[in-house]
Amino acid sequence: MANDREGRETAQPILIVGSVAFDSVETPHGRAEMALGGSASYAGIAASYFATPRLVGIVGDDFAEHHMRKLSDHGVDVRGIERAAGKTFHWRGRYHENMKDRDTLETSLNVFEHFDPAIPEPYRSTPYVLLGNIDPKLQHSVLDQARDAKFVAMDTMNFWINTARESLLDVLQRIDLLFINDEEAMQLADQWSVVAAAETLLRMGPKYVVIKRGEHGALLFGSDITLFVPAVLLPDVVDPTGAGDTFAGGFMGQLSRTGSLDRPSLASALTWGTVLASFTVEAFSVDGIVGLGADAIAERRKQLVEMVRY
Amino acid sequence: MANDREGRETAQPILIVGSVAFDSVETPHGRAEMALGGSASYAGIAASYFATPRLVGIVGDDFAEHHMRKLSDHGVDVRGIERAAGKTFHWRGRYHENMKDRDTLETSLNVFEHFDPAIPEPYRSTPYVLLGNIDPKLQHSVLDQARDAKFVAMDTMNFWINTARESLLDVLQRIDLLFINDEEAMQLADQWSVVAAAETLLRMGPKYVVIKRGEHGALLFGSDITLFVPAVLLPDVVDPTGAGDTFAGGFMGQLSRTGSLDRPSLASALTWGTVLASFTVEAFSVDGIVGLGADAIAERRKQLVEMVRY
Repeated sequence: MANDREGRETAQPILIVGSVAFDSVETPHGRAEMALGGSASYAGIAASYFATPRLVGIVGDDFAEHHMRKLSDHGVDVRGIERAAGKTFHWRGRYHENMKDRDTLETSLNVFEHFDPAIPEPYRSTPYVLLGNIDPKLQHSVLDQARDAKFVAMDTMNFWINTARESLLDVLQRIDLLFINDEEAMQLADQWSVVAAAETLLRMGPKYVVIKRGEHGALLFGSDITLFVPAVLLPDVVDPTGAGDTFAGGFMGQLSRTGSLDRPSLASALTWGTVLASFTVEAFSVDGIVGLGADAIAERRKQLVEMVRY
Repeated sequence: MANDREGRETAQPILIVGSVAFDSVETPHGRAEMALGGSASYAGIAASYFATPRLVGIVGDDFAEHHMRKLSDHGVDVRGIERAAGKTFHWRGRYHENMKDRDTLETSLNVFEHFDPAIPEPYRSTPYVLLGNIDPKLQHSVLDQARDAKFVAMDTMNFWINTARESLLDVLQRIDLLFINDEEAMQLADQWSVVAAAETLLRMGPKYVVIKRGEHGALLFGSDITLFVPAVLLPDVVDPTGAGDTFAGGFMGQLSRTGSLDRPSLASALTWGTVLASFTVEAFSVDGIVGLGADAIAERRKQLVEMVRY
């Protein structure tokens, strides 16, 4: 896949801290059992198209070698994935017919319950950092260790807003960019509109807020920039799991490749993240984003950009 | 307001058939009692920024002269609005906190119940026709009379899909463009995705399908074109009533001004329709779109286009 990654040589590495997990998912299109999942897996594979992702996470002794190889064969640096005695984090869920609502049937944290991210010494100076959707306490710990980070992004969700709000607000003051979905943005900011929520969140610390709206695209807000990218139009979605993590990974990968925060760089990060997420939802697990050809990705991005060319 | 309408001289007139009504609306922001509403009122005022709309509708003897003047002062040709003995169509509704869901508390068709649109002779050769969201039977009747129409668009809703499906499918074969919201598109096409719905609807007759997604923008599909325009970002929405009708009116107005169906014309129609709809939702009744200055409209369109300039 070397041809998919012309820019990787110039891109700076990205430290990605999050979950590496097994997902068992049922959707109206079928099911996957104990398939590779987790925020770090999706984000890592997505980022690997643009840069070298360095994953930090934890798996159990049931995490077969072929799963690890799926990541490393894709250019993901897996030396920061700790292997602990016990079982790997397992999530089981079922999507409704509308492919948006879902029921969580089981969440077994297993070894993830005592995850205490230790950033390997050579990783501590990684310039780009993506804090996956984990306990804000762990996000703080990562930031304490990754002292040379020049751009830090984080993801979060309603669970942490509800249970660890104060700690989460503290993390917000230490980061550059927040990824958050629209409902959670309004919840965290206590606002009724996405625009008002973004303005409030920008005052809480991050320089940029990226609001994820699933099939309705994504918005980026900064003090002097507003960008919108629609989602890729898909006739069918097989499994939405991991779309947000893929988006964040692709975004950070492309951002590190450009090495800039100007408007074209932020816009291209948004579009590439969006394009990769569109491949994720077309298959179960990470199957949709493994081994994509450069042409397929570029063609889809062309369609996306064409749709808003007036 | 002549300065808002430089292009009106070159624009071809638009026949708009729909409801002229009184709306009583309650939202978390306040309430309006017996205020001017109805699909033709919103569409007519929106279209008046670009072309001369010719309204065909019906009102009762309780429809005060100042309401009629609000339309005619805005450049709307109201000679096709019939005045009948009885009361004007009245709708009463209440929006939920999320500003999307609403409860209809009262629908009094009144004189509208026996509306039988008679297109005045001089109107019958109007080149652009917008069939508001009315009984497909009446839409057929209008098309039987407006024989020289060169471009016909229609709007519809779930009520007609549920109660007059066959007649609606017949109208689809006689029109050029269908305006429909996303859920209703999927319902009418019996599909689970917007893309699949649009493809199915295009096979049912119209050359173009415009799918309205409210705060998530609008999509235009044709055999060789796909366009997307996001909604204008608003910190606050006061009353969403009439947004879709405003969008359709603005779209048709701008389309008639360009006199073309090429990509730039369709794209500009989408963006101007979107911009006008954003003003509608910022106030009750038609107050948000009455008397807008050219600068205010142009400024908002600039913001909209800038948001998707990568």
